[in-house]
Amino acid sequence: MVQKPQILGAKTVAKTRIFQVEQLDLRFSNGVEVSYERMRSSGNGAVLIVPLLDAETVLLTREYAAGVHRYELALPKGKIETDEDILLAADREMMEEVGYGAKNLTLISSLTVSPGYMDHVTHVVLAEDLYPKKCEGDEPEEIEVMPWRLDQLNELLLHDECTEARSIAALFMVRERLLSR
Amino acid sequence: MVQKPQILGAKTVAKTRIFQVEQLDLRFSNGVEVSYERMRSSGNGAVLIVPLLDAETVLLTREYAAGVHRYELALPKGKIETDEDILLAADREMMEEVGYGAKNLTLISSLTVSPGYMDHVTHVVLAEDLYPKKCEGDEPEEIEVMPWRLDQLNELLLHDECTEARSIAALFMVRERLLSR
Repeated sequence: MVQKPQILGAKTVAKTRIFQVEQLDLRFSNGVEVSYERMRSSGNGAVLIVPLLDAETVLLTREYAAGVHRYELALPKGKIETDEDILLAADREMMEEVGYGAKNLTLISSLTVSPGYMDHVTHVVLAEDLYPKKCEGDEPEEIEVMPWRLDQLNELLLHDECTEARSIAALFMVRERLLSR
Repeated sequence: MVQKPQILGAKTVAKTRIFQVEQLDLRFSNGVEVSYERMRSSGNGAVLIVPLLDAETVLLTREYAAGVHRYELALPKGKIETDEDILLAADREMMEEVGYGAKNLTLISSLTVSPGYMDHVTHVVLAEDLYPKKCEGDEPEEIEVMPWRLDQLNELLLHDECTEARSIAALFMVRERLLSR
């Protein structure tokens, strides 16, 4: 098994309000030297929550996504705050975005979005035994909540507004988990 | 259904060799005004290929991922070149990374990685009827190819090096598709 490349140097080449780009100078174990750029996360990663309203139904959010300038139908998610526990972050984001808390929270996986170019990690949390609880978030407009049956996952995948890889991966993983119970 | 926000202004706030950050000034339909940052893609998006070696086996790549500074086990992928057809890009990337061409290529989905912050799109292509064909890519070291059985997808998800959401979503989608045949 090959050794991973040695980092010869790293420097920040751009920094904006929320993004930071680093240049990484590497030497691969075969001697080849290359320079890559990657995005560095400022924070502690993110949580993506699969809120199970009942054994067959998840709660999706329909929210404006600036990157693609349209509404996206996906699982609720958000940044983990400084020193915040992963499961507590999941519970808080769920209260802010879908108006529920959960008595039962389970970390089921930690996903990357683009490991070649970003160090960002998203923790996937299954939320069960929900109870209504709404907290104020910092969203510019009310987020629309859409219940969706897990046995209609294939219909969801055909929906124009459902494209986000993390949500799709998480929904399949949870469906798999529930089937094996 | 709410109207999507109006773009009041957009300007590039940072540009590096491969990344471009844009500031977007928005007015939501409720009158709230916000400023967001998003990454703009320079290119034509990317392809992610699910190479089916036989009815039960996909070909994964184990490749150094600079964003997380470790090796990642995932599906082969790469950027679409200028004016290149999606399916031809998939075939080319597969020849470069796994040493096979495909007689049968099908676009099955187009995924986003982080639609709130990036406009990047990845087209998922199912590749069948493979034949050995190796082309030179621009990789700094040889990419390791690992066959993996689709009925061992759950074992793959437990692997430390398999974290990328697009690959996981694509593997589930393809398994679903094959089961329904």
